[in-house]
Amino acid sequence: MKVGILGYGNLGRGVEAAVNKNEDMELCAVYTRRDPAALAIRTEGVPVKSADCLEGGAEDIDVLVICGGSATDLPEMTPKYAAWYNVVDSFDTHANIPTHFANVDDKAKAAGKTAIISCGWDPGMFSISRIYADSVLPGSQAYTFWGKGVSQGHSDAIRRIEGVVDARQYTIPVPEALNKVRSGANPTLTTREKHTRECFVVAEEGADLARIEKEIVTMPNYFADYDTTVYFISAEEMKKNHSGLPHGGSVICSGETGKDGMKHVIEYSLTLDSNPEFTGSVLAAFARAIVRLNNEGVAGAKTVFDIAPAYLSPRSAEELRAHFL
Amino acid sequence: MKVGILGYGNLGRGVEAAVNKNEDMELCAVYTRRDPAALAIRTEGVPVKSADCLEGGAEDIDVLVICGGSATDLPEMTPKYAAWYNVVDSFDTHANIPTHFANVDDKAKAAGKTAIISCGWDPGMFSISRIYADSVLPGSQAYTFWGKGVSQGHSDAIRRIEGVVDARQYTIPVPEALNKVRSGANPTLTTREKHTRECFVVAEEGADLARIEKEIVTMPNYFADYDTTVYFISAEEMKKNHSGLPHGGSVICSGETGKDGMKHVIEYSLTLDSNPEFTGSVLAAFARAIVRLNNEGVAGAKTVFDIAPAYLSPRSAEELRAHFL
Repeated sequence: MKVGILGYGNLGRGVEAAVNKNEDMELCAVYTRRDPAALAIRTEGVPVKSADCLEGGAEDIDVLVICGGSATDLPEMTPKYAAWYNVVDSFDTHANIPTHFANVDDKAKAAGKTAIISCGWDPGMFSISRIYADSVLPGSQAYTFWGKGVSQGHSDAIRRIEGVVDARQYTIPVPEALNKVRSGANPTLTTREKHTRECFVVAEEGADLARIEKEIVTMPNYFADYDTTVYFISAEEMKKNHSGLPHGGSVICSGETGKDGMKHVIEYSLTLDSNPEFTGSVLAAFARAIVRLNNEGVAGAKTVFDIAPAYLSPRSAEELRAHFL
Repeated sequence: MKVGILGYGNLGRGVEAAVNKNEDMELCAVYTRRDPAALAIRTEGVPVKSADCLEGGAEDIDVLVICGGSATDLPEMTPKYAAWYNVVDSFDTHANIPTHFANVDDKAKAAGKTAIISCGWDPGMFSISRIYADSVLPGSQAYTFWGKGVSQGHSDAIRRIEGVVDARQYTIPVPEALNKVRSGANPTLTTREKHTRECFVVAEEGADLARIEKEIVTMPNYFADYDTTVYFISAEEMKKNHSGLPHGGSVICSGETGKDGMKHVIEYSLTLDSNPEFTGSVLAAFARAIVRLNNEGVAGAKTVFDIAPAYLSPRSAEELRAHFL
């Protein structure tokens, strides 16, 4: 399977690492919108090419994994490239998924290509766990907790505050809320009751720390609805203790069956040393599925809900039935 | 969706409860190999019929959920009825799955019917969680823990010992083993290190308790490889404290990505008040999928690996994308 990667940020490097771990995949090229000559990638012998090379479907790849941002990159890029290649993206702006899906579906169907959007762990593996639980336990309630982990969007928001040199934001589930949900109590929880936020901030020398802290904790959408704690640290401490991108979380679903109200709790949880490397690994597995579906003549946009688990695995159906069932 | 249930033991009643919770399903009949007149079922207005009525495909149902035992019932019943109906079973003798699959596949394909075998939670939901984890994290290792819960097979084995009136056996994961696996350490664990077994036994008056205990803890395959504790209790205590069929467990998978060996742990866990009611709920969801696949012209035997998650849900693709992704 010949794989191309478009975009070489954290996620692009995560996909690169995953492709190199999958023996049936070959990384053919990394495509960039910047100057290819200025970009050194980790895999030896693989060319870095201009994104322009992709125009018209000229590249000999089975699937293109598009590693762009959901705000402006993917809404434009995924439909565009779906007209020429089988594509995979990790579009995660939940409210705009229906529109993005329709745009990609149009282009892919017209071209006889197969696309999967909104792949990763949330949306992605967490979504899968929500749909299985909802199907098996009708009327059940699902709770999603994120963390402990670094939210890159929230870290960026802090970095835009005047006087901030660097910042790292951790999202942390509230243990009492987790325990209540795990007990099967189906509680009603506010945003504040589910997660807290911890911010580690490197400030400019002489900056007004009280003002920075206030700007953070009152920031609408990002922090105002949470109990937020701000710690000012040195650049050295930031580098030493906060340079990773760990993340994770849990989808917990509880429901009842029968006349006696038997309770059942289903939990799917992830503990990830590297958010982008795990997300990249999910994208690689779904890239395999997309290529297979296209080989079977299936065209159009898909989501993780539309892919049977066997399509993700390099193993044969016989091996799966004998050893994984 | 018109559903028939064949067999009305614990599992059959679990499927009945699940069908009644799914608004798009209607329980049409319960079929039994015993005297139908002697069987009262929980759902009012639904007929109990002889299994003979099913012969030749005479019954007007969309799917037949076969609730028999894996040892002798299902190997004969599932292929037989797959020649006349779309069928679902929970065949769980792992070693014989390939043969059972081939037998059912032959009959179903020839008849243009669709069948799913080995459905439930293990095999079933646990298998799904193993294949997703193996596909996303190549080279990772999966550990399955069962319990705390009642093993019906082990309870039956104790009941066959002379002098035993009743017995309940609980399988319990060893907490240290669970913690080691959750840490991502990928330990090598023996059978004894993973689970312990607790047995609650009601003995005949005057029975030789020491002999019974010895027969239990040395029983090959069932108990000899485990640390087993036997408690003799009264019939009253058995009824009061051990009449339920709770179960559950965890599939924990850990693997690494990238050159720096980033660790990731994926855990899927179930805590179930009623093993048969949860299993029945899984069978009902997959029954929906099987009917849909058959309506699309797909014939033959399937496993949970072959079914895309969306097929299990009564919700539309649009609703799923908008609210569950």
